[in-house]
Amino acid sequence: MTAARRTATRLADGRELLYFDDTATAPRVAVDRRQIWARPDHPELRYDPTAGEWVIVAGHRQERTHLPPTEACPLCPSAADRQTEIPEPSYDVVVFENRFPSLAGDRGRCEVVCFTDDHDASFASLPPGRVRTVVDVWADRTEALGRRADIEYVFCFENRGVEIGVTLPHPHGQIYGYPFVPPRPARMIECATRHRRDTGRDLFDEVLASERGAGGRVVAANHDWTAFVPAAARWPFEVHVYPHRRVPDLPALEPAERDSLASIYLDVLDRFDRVLGPPAPYVAAWYQAPVRTGRADLALHLEVFSIRRAPGKLKYLAGSESAMEVWINDVAPEEAAGLLREAGPVAGTPGRT
Amino acid sequence: MTAARRTATRLADGRELLYFDDTATAPRVAVDRRQIWARPDHPELRYDPTAGEWVIVAGHRQERTHLPPTEACPLCPSAADRQTEIPEPSYDVVVFENRFPSLAGDRGRCEVVCFTDDHDASFASLPPGRVRTVVDVWADRTEALGRRADIEYVFCFENRGVEIGVTLPHPHGQIYGYPFVPPRPARMIECATRHRRDTGRDLFDEVLASERGAGGRVVAANHDWTAFVPAAARWPFEVHVYPHRRVPDLPALEPAERDSLASIYLDVLDRFDRVLGPPAPYVAAWYQAPVRTGRADLALHLEVFSIRRAPGKLKYLAGSESAMEVWINDVAPEEAAGLLREAGPVAGTPGRT
Repeated sequence: MTAARRTATRLADGRELLYFDDTATAPRVAVDRRQIWARPDHPELRYDPTAGEWVIVAGHRQERTHLPPTEACPLCPSAADRQTEIPEPSYDVVVFENRFPSLAGDRGRCEVVCFTDDHDASFASLPPGRVRTVVDVWADRTEALGRRADIEYVFCFENRGVEIGVTLPHPHGQIYGYPFVPPRPARMIECATRHRRDTGRDLFDEVLASERGAGGRVVAANHDWTAFVPAAARWPFEVHVYPHRRVPDLPALEPAERDSLASIYLDVLDRFDRVLGPPAPYVAAWYQAPVRTGRADLALHLEVFSIRRAPGKLKYLAGSESAMEVWINDVAPEEAAGLLREAGPVAGTPGRT
Repeated sequence: MTAARRTATRLADGRELLYFDDTATAPRVAVDRRQIWARPDHPELRYDPTAGEWVIVAGHRQERTHLPPTEACPLCPSAADRQTEIPEPSYDVVVFENRFPSLAGDRGRCEVVCFTDDHDASFASLPPGRVRTVVDVWADRTEALGRRADIEYVFCFENRGVEIGVTLPHPHGQIYGYPFVPPRPARMIECATRHRRDTGRDLFDEVLASERGAGGRVVAANHDWTAFVPAAARWPFEVHVYPHRRVPDLPALEPAERDSLASIYLDVLDRFDRVLGPPAPYVAAWYQAPVRTGRADLALHLEVFSIRRAPGKLKYLAGSESAMEVWINDVAPEEAAGLLREAGPVAGTPGRT
């Protein structure tokens, strides 16, 4: 399944750590020599009976490392004089259990994914080969976490930028294994199921065909993927990236689709930087089918959105969004699509279907 | 219904404006002499078929007034040399249609509520008599907007603080008349309906009784109202204020309940300022029954929450909250309740029931 070389080890406090190397290099054998112990505190899942939703209460996270100076970055590789979360002196991609998790024990899992050992890089600056390794990592973790009895949904994502609350600037993403299907993907499954029952057709196929047919909101496309601003975008700059072949999740992507994903992903992030001023803050969120249910209904796709509505201006979630869950978007999706389309290095032309 | 004196007029571009005076003073007769015309642009409601929700697209709002200097504040009363949105040279409370609305025409309405003509005041600094007028205003608007055929839900709220994106510092709130029942109150109705079917009891009555019985999360209380941090709070500092007598909406509150609401509301805001450092940014959101449906199921209550998680630190909505709708709260609700309880001018003791 995974093209990258995978080496599993454990940190000093027992947490799992996995190296994924673009190509086979020297073996990964360094040992974590820190004196750290397993944290006793565990997050708690609480149910809100009035709004019908689960909330994670993780009081211990207030202590987590907050914007440390570069020389104290816990995501850089270890050096002779300094031990970090990663024992090796260099790495390609590394995954490990979060020391301050929102989900832990037998109620889910939180993992950190470091995209590069270069502290000053960003996802957008990675070479396509490295992005391909990251895609393989997401697929690996989706499969591995999906085998656990306590995990129902695997969410791979990246929060990028201090404006979105990122506490560590080193390029990294996260993977959450939730012990339930979260509300938004659950609602997507309901919508797709109802659509199939009412029309006999697949909802995600129809959305993709309609956007490719109309073209006005398409931002970029290649042989396997199309990136577009959805008609009812919630965020001023929001792009959805759909594969042309409908699949339930990341592990189902073929090698060629993973390569072309790397290329369109980098293209989309580059456009965000160009339109919103680098570095653009964003959330990149993978929606995939739950591990055991709704496999035929929720089709894999990526949603990337920025909380910036213009250079220097943020979109805030206030009363209507937070309390009513009604989003107000001050930028017309067609306008955002036009700006993102024109910002690209090459005009976005839909590839063959 | 309304204790305050109500005077209706129109602005130069045809928008409605209403004065609500604490007591009868000189008549409100000033005329809007500005040369302004009705704006041609209208917000658009778009449906997201994949997530099953409505999004408001309001492109024209990008132009709205953003943090003007005090001498250019459009919410201050007019003066001899300057015409604002309010023609009179002074006012108590005033309500008018938003010039840059998210909902307009025959698809809802957005109103601005100015709480005082004192630019440098805040809701928390209002005298209780003025808060009582504001409560009467909310009740008046709930009834008036509820009579319109295109409005299904009336939402009274205040966004306070630049950290939540407020563009005008003059003390004001907003009222949205939505042409549909928004997702969160709709879900509350589903939860309450299911609870009644399964147990024969009212969900909101049970939550209130349980919090008053346990007491550990109660922040303040008086004869008619109890303020508590909910067990599954989404925000680090979040307080729900429930009336002891279950009612569907603000118009159903008795005069005595309106007075005691003014007192507990000011108490809660004062505690937010003390714990989070004045001025605390917050959203204060009224949940009430929809205009025509679910009248017996959604019980009136206020939810106040801050996006500050400690003085100088903000809670951000990143991947888990925005994309999955799973909230992570880094402050235990019991801890937040303890801090807010201790911060009060008087120890919060539950009043008689």
